[in-house]
Amino acid sequence: MHELARHIRNIPDFPKKGIVFRDITTLLKEPTAFKKAVDILYERYRDKGISKIVCVEARGFILGGALAAQLGAGFVPIRKKGKLPAETYKEEYQLEYGIDTVEIHKDAIVRGERCLLHDDLLATGGTMLACANLVKKVGGEVAGICFLIELSFLNGREKLKGFDVHSIIQYESE
Amino acid sequence: MHELARHIRNIPDFPKKGIVFRDITTLLKEPTAFKKAVDILYERYRDKGISKIVCVEARGFILGGALAAQLGAGFVPIRKKGKLPAETYKEEYQLEYGIDTVEIHKDAIVRGERCLLHDDLLATGGTMLACANLVKKVGGEVAGICFLIELSFLNGREKLKGFDVHSIIQYESE
Repeated sequence: MHELARHIRNIPDFPKKGIVFRDITTLLKEPTAFKKAVDILYERYRDKGISKIVCVEARGFILGGALAAQLGAGFVPIRKKGKLPAETYKEEYQLEYGIDTVEIHKDAIVRGERCLLHDDLLATGGTMLACANLVKKVGGEVAGICFLIELSFLNGREKLKGFDVHSIIQYESE
Repeated sequence: MHELARHIRNIPDFPKKGIVFRDITTLLKEPTAFKKAVDILYERYRDKGISKIVCVEARGFILGGALAAQLGAGFVPIRKKGKLPAETYKEEYQLEYGIDTVEIHKDAIVRGERCLLHDDLLATGGTMLACANLVKKVGGEVAGICFLIELSFLNGREKLKGFDVHSIIQYESE
């Protein structure tokens, strides 16, 4: 387990009974831990020709914003339905109960741009697969997908097969 | 008007008729414009002893995350009701129709820490005043409040009187 894991707080029974929530706010608030997480991703992707960091709201924006600035890349938000003001492409994905929709601006990415996708947590991978599909719809190349935390036991990587997936901290069980 | 303003896209009648929405995504996606915005805030606050950047979701997280990493500060999210997993303080604020609630973790800030508050847009100032009250509740010192955009004609500064308020781009009319 990466040493940054000691900054993650475990919250039992959130958001519901039986779930252990991995709270990243205790990592973000520690300047050296937060900067270390940014630096790890920066070092991994600095020579990969990344011109856009694409992140899904809301927690993904935090590390993603920092990474974009440090890499000298542009930042592209993917948001829930109705939040982006200009023309968008939409993508639906399955939740435990029901369906959710994410959107990206049609002009967010120039055709062929190398995009690095980021979110704070990889669980089942449904949200991130929808994000990758959106990036492809606007003509971007998914050069990599990165997470701060991966819940390995949920097999999100399986759903993201074919993409270069990286995470800093992995949890093998609940 | 600051030269960064040319990267802001104006969207008429969003989210409703008569409102001109100032869309920052066209600035964020331009690497030099995004980095310039971060650098402006970094230069202003680098010698101010800031140890926490406190940001309200969701758009505020983007520049705020980048600023925290560059300043070597910790990052503290303020979120809508029910999103933060540990013990929180809450603060209500008035919307045009109804009331909204923001929350901060009780252990997010050490007593006396100098905090810089950030959001992308200053409109009437209601949300940010609620955020400043939360920071004071957890014992933080509001060392400054900064925005990318200020809608000056809505007089948000009046509501934030007594705080050191800064914005990069100001709009004097709708």
